[in-house]
Amino acid sequence: MERARTVTVRPGSVVALSGGVGGAKLALGLHRVLDNGKLTVICNTGDDFRHLGLHICPDIDTILYTLSGLADPDRGWGRHDETWNFMEALKDLGGETWFRIGDRDLATHIERTQRLEHGEPLSVATDHFRRRLGISTHIVPMSDDPVRTQLLSEAGWLDFQDYFVRQRCNPVVREIAFAGAEKSEPAPGVVSALNDPQLQAVVICPSNPLISIEPILAVPGIRKALKGCSVPLIGVSPIIGGRAIRGPADKLMRELSFGSSAAAVAQRYADLIDAWVVDKVDADTPVPSGVKKVVTSTMMVSMEDREKLARDVLDAAQQMSFKPISATKATDVSA
Amino acid sequence: MERARTVTVRPGSVVALSGGVGGAKLALGLHRVLDNGKLTVICNTGDDFRHLGLHICPDIDTILYTLSGLADPDRGWGRHDETWNFMEALKDLGGETWFRIGDRDLATHIERTQRLEHGEPLSVATDHFRRRLGISTHIVPMSDDPVRTQLLSEAGWLDFQDYFVRQRCNPVVREIAFAGAEKSEPAPGVVSALNDPQLQAVVICPSNPLISIEPILAVPGIRKALKGCSVPLIGVSPIIGGRAIRGPADKLMRELSFGSSAAAVAQRYADLIDAWVVDKVDADTPVPSGVKKVVTSTMMVSMEDREKLARDVLDAAQQMSFKPISATKATDVSA
Repeated sequence: MERARTVTVRPGSVVALSGGVGGAKLALGLHRVLDNGKLTVICNTGDDFRHLGLHICPDIDTILYTLSGLADPDRGWGRHDETWNFMEALKDLGGETWFRIGDRDLATHIERTQRLEHGEPLSVATDHFRRRLGISTHIVPMSDDPVRTQLLSEAGWLDFQDYFVRQRCNPVVREIAFAGAEKSEPAPGVVSALNDPQLQAVVICPSNPLISIEPILAVPGIRKALKGCSVPLIGVSPIIGGRAIRGPADKLMRELSFGSSAAAVAQRYADLIDAWVVDKVDADTPVPSGVKKVVTSTMMVSMEDREKLARDVLDAAQQMSFKPISATKATDVSA
Repeated sequence: MERARTVTVRPGSVVALSGGVGGAKLALGLHRVLDNGKLTVICNTGDDFRHLGLHICPDIDTILYTLSGLADPDRGWGRHDETWNFMEALKDLGGETWFRIGDRDLATHIERTQRLEHGEPLSVATDHFRRRLGISTHIVPMSDDPVRTQLLSEAGWLDFQDYFVRQRCNPVVREIAFAGAEKSEPAPGVVSALNDPQLQAVVICPSNPLISIEPILAVPGIRKALKGCSVPLIGVSPIIGGRAIRGPADKLMRELSFGSSAAAVAQRYADLIDAWVVDKVDADTPVPSGVKKVVTSTMMVSMEDREKLARDVLDAAQQMSFKPISATKATDVSA
C-alpha cells in the first residue's frame, strides 16, 4: 500500500457522500489528506426542516462546521465556544425549545433563510457559506429541491426531526420514505463532480445508511450518475461489531429487519459499491459478490484516525484503478 | 400637591402614549407609582420593520424590556447582560450587520415573527410577551395594521430604520409621512382603555413628537378617542432648554422649521392637551391658550427622578379633575 502513495501525483478529484457526524469525520479526513479543492462532499438534505421560521440543514451545517474547524467535538453538532442565550430567552417567552440552537449557529440559519427567501438556491447559499468559512472542499446539497425523510411509526408518519430530536429515536420505525425524492433533481455540481474526467474515487462515508445515505441515493439523477461512474466506488461501514458508533442506525436496521451488521449495510449498497471497508472486528463479514473487502481500523477517535482511514480508503481506490490520487498532503511524494 | 395625593384611593386607570427610550423612562415611573394593572402604555409602531426575515418592533421592545427590568440602562436599547455572538457569526457569513441584535433580544424577534406568521395580531403577541415577562402594565401597539414612518430627504424617501440607524439621522429631513396610517385602526385595547369609565388621565410621554408620538396620533381612531376623552390629557416636553435629551427630535424640528423648543412641541399637541409639563429651565416657555403649564424637573437620570416626574404628572392631572388617581404606591395614603 505504501508504494501506491508514492507515485507521481496529478490532479485528481474525489467525491464523498455524507450525512452528519459519522460521515463528517471521514469527510474531514479526506479534506485534510487531499489537495485543496479536490474533494466534493455531497450532503444529505433529507433531514432539513423549517423551525422557528428558519430553514435548517443539519447535515450541511455539520459538514460546514467540521471542515472549517468550528464544530463542537464533544456535542457532535453545532459550534464550539457556543452560547445559549437566545435559547434561554426564548424559553422565558414561551417559545419552542425542543430543538436547541446556539447563538452563533443561529446566524447560519437566519442568513440561509434570508438567501433562500430571496430566491437563492440552497446549493448557492451553501457554496457562499463554505467560501466565507474558508473551506476549499466543495460542499453540495444532494438537491436544491425539497426531499424530506419521513418515518412510519405506530403513531403514523413522523417528520425526521420530530422522530430524531423531539422523540429521541424512541418510536419503532416500520418504514422510511423520502418525500419529494422521485421528482428531485441533483443540485448543480453533483453530476458534474461525478462526471469529472479527473474523478478518481467515490466514497460513501460511514453515515447512517437508511436516513443519511439512502436519501441521497433516492435522488434519481444521483443514483444514475453513480451507476455510470467508471471510478472505484468505496463504501465505509458505519457499523462496527454490530453497533452504530452514534445515532440510531443499528436500532433502525433491526426494526426494519435488515439486521445490524456491516454485511447488511453492504447489501443495501450492493448494486453500487466496488469495495466495502470494514473494521478489523468485522474481518470475517461476508460482502456481496464482486465487491472487494477492505479491512482496516474504521473507528475514528483522533484526527490521526480520520486521516489514516481517509488514506486507507484512497489507497483502496487507487489499487482498483490506474489513476493516481492527488493526495500530496497525505504522503511524502519524494520518498 | 401633597394633599391631593392623600385622598381615599379608588380604582382608576391611566393611559400613556410612548415611543422608545425617553418615553419609556416616564412609562417606567408611572408603572412603578401606579397600582398593578392601572397603567396602559400605547406604543408607537411606526418604527417597526422587517429585517433578516424578522418582524422588529423597537419601541414595543424598549417598553417591554424597560418595564420588566431587562433593559440595558446605558445603551438605551436592547437587553442588559446581552451577548453578541449571533451578530459576530453573521458578520463572518457576510450577513447584514448595520442593525445590531443581541442574542437574547433575538428571541423576542423570532418568537414574535412566528406568532405573526401564524396569524396572531401584534397586540396579542405583545400581550403574551408582557405576561411572560411578568409586567402588570398593559402594553398595546397603536395598531395591528402596518403604519410606517418615512422621511423625505434630499435623496428621496427613507424608511425609518434606514434613516435612524443606518444613516444615523444624518440626512436633512424635509417631510415625514406615516404610510398606512389613514386606513389603520387602533389595536384592540386602545380605544377601550381611552373610554374606560375608570380612566383618570392620559399622559403623552416625553418622546420625539415627530416620529414617536405623531405616528400614534396619525391613527384616526386614536386621535378621535383622545378628542373624546373627558379626563385631563397631560403632555410632558421631550425638549429641555431647546435640546432633546436623546435622539434627533431637536435636529428634526429645526430642519422642519418648527424650532426646537418646549413651546414648539406644545404647539403641535395644542388641540389635544390640557396641561404641558416643562422643565424648570423652560419655566418661561409660552403654552397654547387654554393649556395649563406645569413646571417641574423633567430630567430623568435616577429611578427616583422617574417616579417623581410620574407623581408630578399624576398630581397635575388630579388637580384638574375630580377623580382621585389610584397611586397607592406613590404615596402614604394614611398621611
